[in-house]
Amino acid sequence: MTERDRAGGVLTVDLDAVRENWRMLEGMVGPTAECAATVKADAYGLGIDRVAPALAGAGCRTFFVAAIDEGIALRRLVPDARIFVLNGPFPGTCRDFLEHRLVPVLNAREQVEAWTTGGCGGEAALHVDTGMNRLGLAEDELASLAATPGALSPILLMSHLACAEDGQSVMNAGQLARFLTARRLLPAVPASLANSSGIFLGPGYHFDMVRPGAALFGVSPRAGQPNPMRQVVRLQGKIVQLRDVDRPMTVGYGATHRVTGRGRVATVAVGYADGFPRSLSNRGCGHVGGVRVPLVGRVSMDLITFDVSEAPPEAVRPGAMIDLIGRENPVDAVADQAGTIGYEILTSLGHRYYRHYVGGAA
Amino acid sequence: MTERDRAGGVLTVDLDAVRENWRMLEGMVGPTAECAATVKADAYGLGIDRVAPALAGAGCRTFFVAAIDEGIALRRLVPDARIFVLNGPFPGTCRDFLEHRLVPVLNAREQVEAWTTGGCGGEAALHVDTGMNRLGLAEDELASLAATPGALSPILLMSHLACAEDGQSVMNAGQLARFLTARRLLPAVPASLANSSGIFLGPGYHFDMVRPGAALFGVSPRAGQPNPMRQVVRLQGKIVQLRDVDRPMTVGYGATHRVTGRGRVATVAVGYADGFPRSLSNRGCGHVGGVRVPLVGRVSMDLITFDVSEAPPEAVRPGAMIDLIGRENPVDAVADQAGTIGYEILTSLGHRYYRHYVGGAA
Repeated sequence: MTERDRAGGVLTVDLDAVRENWRMLEGMVGPTAECAATVKADAYGLGIDRVAPALAGAGCRTFFVAAIDEGIALRRLVPDARIFVLNGPFPGTCRDFLEHRLVPVLNAREQVEAWTTGGCGGEAALHVDTGMNRLGLAEDELASLAATPGALSPILLMSHLACAEDGQSVMNAGQLARFLTARRLLPAVPASLANSSGIFLGPGYHFDMVRPGAALFGVSPRAGQPNPMRQVVRLQGKIVQLRDVDRPMTVGYGATHRVTGRGRVATVAVGYADGFPRSLSNRGCGHVGGVRVPLVGRVSMDLITFDVSEAPPEAVRPGAMIDLIGRENPVDAVADQAGTIGYEILTSLGHRYYRHYVGGAA
Repeated sequence: MTERDRAGGVLTVDLDAVRENWRMLEGMVGPTAECAATVKADAYGLGIDRVAPALAGAGCRTFFVAAIDEGIALRRLVPDARIFVLNGPFPGTCRDFLEHRLVPVLNAREQVEAWTTGGCGGEAALHVDTGMNRLGLAEDELASLAATPGALSPILLMSHLACAEDGQSVMNAGQLARFLTARRLLPAVPASLANSSGIFLGPGYHFDMVRPGAALFGVSPRAGQPNPMRQVVRLQGKIVQLRDVDRPMTVGYGATHRVTGRGRVATVAVGYADGFPRSLSNRGCGHVGGVRVPLVGRVSMDLITFDVSEAPPEAVRPGAMIDLIGRENPVDAVADQAGTIGYEILTSLGHRYYRHYVGGAA
């Protein structure tokens, strides 16, 4: 009768692990640099209403979101924190920033002009592009802005790294050099360059503030190296039905998987409408009773099927759970099986799961 | 200041098109068969709170959802309709069905036993598996149930097609034959086999009720053939910034795209956290001012970049919109570019978009 009974899957979020991850990163950069937290996209899919207060309770004082509405929602959760909105002000949104005490990141000349001449004039950050070519002022635009007295007094100068998860990429040093050059134009303004992965490139990348996001939630900040972060997410799917196979048969849409021998197939009430990617069809896996069980057939909208022939029979019965993301198959491994990155696995986590939060008390 | 001003993208859902699609399918199967509507997964991502009342207003009296909580939410929206829950009752959820007048689809022997002996005993549907091997009673289980007088009087006997979108698949005739055999066991019970695609396999597949879902929302029901359904969804992304390129540069994460000549890049405030798949990196496209603009670089969490060099300059400015899904690039085409199916594109549609509904009045 409870929400948990009714749900096809259970998503457990370990808020203590989030806080421990944040404290570890804070320890790497402090006391010289402040450790902020990036909680855009509903705290990477994990629920900003629970994640942000837990981080604030751990001592985090500065948050980054992408969109204005995310900032408005966050303001209610952390009344005293500083909130930066990465995508900046869109036309007509000036007053929303002032009303909710949000600090826009000004990324383009038009945003700077709208902010300074549109009757706004509150605190703002400046984003200078150093090679990502996605958002940010060009260096000559920053130079002309810096040369205009009284044009703008940003409270933060920031940029964003394109290849930080790859410590060997030549992009990193190039972006660092360009950021150092940009910083000389506004030497008194606090500076921020590093995302999660950038923190691991070394102290030279820390400046006055770092902005980790994914690593807080257990995604590995360093490609191809051991993950120093604690896992935050456990996703379990509920078994709806078991089928004993005693003759060759195909499974699921398109009949893409053929079971040849004797065995057992479990159908689980999680599908791509829950953000469990369809690209895991015939490639993913689950774990139950300590045994890896391959995902067979296509992921459908509300259901997936596993070959549970090797699992202990007492662990597989209707109503029992199969682990889809967790200790035995962490988020980065699932992403690898799906042909994407852990970030997309997290931000896709759906809304039909029963969400269970553990820890997080101040 | 409005929600639309603040949003990075606008999702327009044409409820009149949904109703017209339903009426077209109803015309194909009526008056012999009833045309129900499958609205699981929040009406395939489009918002069950708006879609279900619009369909009820058009005359739809029977709805299918996947999960119990979807049924509970739907009951409030369509008080008089019949609601089937495809995944059936999970242990401990019997009373939820009775309280909200939901009809479970019983898929497994355990579900039948729990329903008949667990103090429930309300109306139920039976799902017999005919070759999908995902959910449903085996044929011998159905036979033994049918042979037990008074065991259960289902109000619907259903099965599900595995390959219906492919009219040439031999699976279809095989599943039809098995369903006909199963039906002979319960000849007085109304029967349902066809999803959207199954309707197009011909009247022999219609039985007493059809259960279209995806086709209502504009997804083509027939692979590789012209789409007879009206498009329902338009997705537009807002331009945050334009960048004039006058020397070679790379764009975005991983520096995977290199711009070589002169041109313009537009950054748009939609990303994979909005359900715009990361697999569209360097493969997707948008349309603006009647011109196709290729997606360049990687899709990031909150942003995408387009090469807008060929677009009319007056159509590309900060705050203007680029079409991501719509008339020029319908949902099935986007799915094809992303390596998936239209169903997953729809169910992934995110929650940061401003959602604009048109039509749907009774």
